[in-house]
Amino acid sequence: MAMTTTTAERSTGSNSFDLHSYLKYNKDKVDNALKEVMKTYDCPSPLQEAMLYSLAAGGKRLRPILVIAASNLNGSPACDPMPAACALEFVHTYSLIHDDLPAMDDDDFRRGKPTNHKVFGEALAILAGDALLTEAFTIISKAYGSEFPAIAAGVTAELASSAGAEGMVGGQVLDTIATGNTPDIVEMERLHRMKTGALIKSALLIGGIVGGVGPEKLDALERYGLELGLAFQITDDLLDVTGDLVSLGKTPGSDERMNKPTYPKLLGIEAARSLAAEVRDRAIDSLKSFGNNAEPLCAIAHYVVERSF
Amino acid sequence: MAMTTTTAERSTGSNSFDLHSYLKYNKDKVDNALKEVMKTYDCPSPLQEAMLYSLAAGGKRLRPILVIAASNLNGSPACDPMPAACALEFVHTYSLIHDDLPAMDDDDFRRGKPTNHKVFGEALAILAGDALLTEAFTIISKAYGSEFPAIAAGVTAELASSAGAEGMVGGQVLDTIATGNTPDIVEMERLHRMKTGALIKSALLIGGIVGGVGPEKLDALERYGLELGLAFQITDDLLDVTGDLVSLGKTPGSDERMNKPTYPKLLGIEAARSLAAEVRDRAIDSLKSFGNNAEPLCAIAHYVVERSF
Repeated sequence: MAMTTTTAERSTGSNSFDLHSYLKYNKDKVDNALKEVMKTYDCPSPLQEAMLYSLAAGGKRLRPILVIAASNLNGSPACDPMPAACALEFVHTYSLIHDDLPAMDDDDFRRGKPTNHKVFGEALAILAGDALLTEAFTIISKAYGSEFPAIAAGVTAELASSAGAEGMVGGQVLDTIATGNTPDIVEMERLHRMKTGALIKSALLIGGIVGGVGPEKLDALERYGLELGLAFQITDDLLDVTGDLVSLGKTPGSDERMNKPTYPKLLGIEAARSLAAEVRDRAIDSLKSFGNNAEPLCAIAHYVVERSF
Repeated sequence: MAMTTTTAERSTGSNSFDLHSYLKYNKDKVDNALKEVMKTYDCPSPLQEAMLYSLAAGGKRLRPILVIAASNLNGSPACDPMPAACALEFVHTYSLIHDDLPAMDDDDFRRGKPTNHKVFGEALAILAGDALLTEAFTIISKAYGSEFPAIAAGVTAELASSAGAEGMVGGQVLDTIATGNTPDIVEMERLHRMKTGALIKSALLIGGIVGGVGPEKLDALERYGLELGLAFQITDDLLDVTGDLVSLGKTPGSDERMNKPTYPKLLGIEAARSLAAEVRDRAIDSLKSFGNNAEPLCAIAHYVVERSF
């Protein structure tokens, strides 16, 4: 009987929850919503094309799906999570465009397609990133500002602080400095917590805010988000060693070539896999209080880690 | 007697309003507030240094002072305008850092000092810009979000839409495309309305929102802001022809060298000066309903244009 299974069991395939359909259904909804948002802009067409190119370049839409999943933890959300979900994807997409620039990681391919600056040139790639970041805040304030101003302010605060100097941008700075050096595991965790973890945690918290989840349960969501971000990073590092171009959408071995610090390099492949599994279990454990409503998030934690096995 | 003078007369020195002291007093307050904000960041020190370098590089703090002046149009403001003023300066500073990048205008000097990327390298300059833009929204949501969520949402909406794809970033894209071409005056006005005008207009509207100015008076402020932005641009174009390195803080003649479309080029110097004066008078005229409270803004309109005479 469902009531007696643990959260972890429910998400490992021991019940009927179908993660594949859940991800597909929500990815399609996010894809459509992103297209609708982009249609509304009255801006110079080269800018619109450059923004749309990277937004439409696919990806799993993990962050927006996390927003949606978290917004449903109390049953039905306080307001529509989709604008917040799109805002997260705007910020994530801007960060990829800027990270790929010649002055940064200098990547020619992303998700199997030429990177933004390879197609539109550096100037437009920088500006498309700037516009995506800025418009994330327009989306939030337009969607929630009039009817739910407190939610708009809360989502803005969370998104800006996780994406800014103390979060994602700060992490990218640490990454730029770390390349070529060999940091210890404490420094590396700080780097990843800021660079990748902050926005993933933010997706969960923003979903919780939009969903009307109370302060105590937001703490639980934050714990889940931090563990999921870490699990995600360890797995990404593992895939860079063990994956191939098709499954990665980028050339494997790039961390090695850039001499970037990674978990497999510091711990070895097996120990990194064990750590990912431990972190996944802690993530799932933090969702106990949500009961059945946490099924999608538990299944996502498994999915994120098991990509690398 | 003051009641019988026109708004324009009051600001031309026919009364006791001392613009020089007003600008100095508020610039010092803004400079101090910006320093205080920067102290609060717990971020990697190279990022903090790069952000602070460009924030501290001076400038007249026109946009934050416009926020403060507009917030006082009803007497005393509904809430402290300083955080919103700082947010405007963060956004303005980010835009200068990114505009100066090698892929964009490739400028080595700004306000008489080496540009951000010349000191910190391109990667850090891009990231410092990204962080300043993002943190503008953190500042707003932290300052107003809990106590005045509707003001926080209104300021965020206005700032993001004026800085984004349909505003400043869109204008920069038009500028990138226009360089080397010869657009007509309609195209050039669109370019400047987006690139420079949108953020100036936004400073006024944001001041009005923070100050608790009602919808009808916000419309008057918007008209003033649009005219001021245009006056500012025409004067900047004139100064690029007639100014010197010391008064400009950058090398004059750069528009000519970049083959950028300008008002003096399209209209001739004298006609451009007449247009600036007309636009200034329209700006001042739109503030009639505010009476004496509009003195600083009227004086600023004169100041902006008379820099070029």
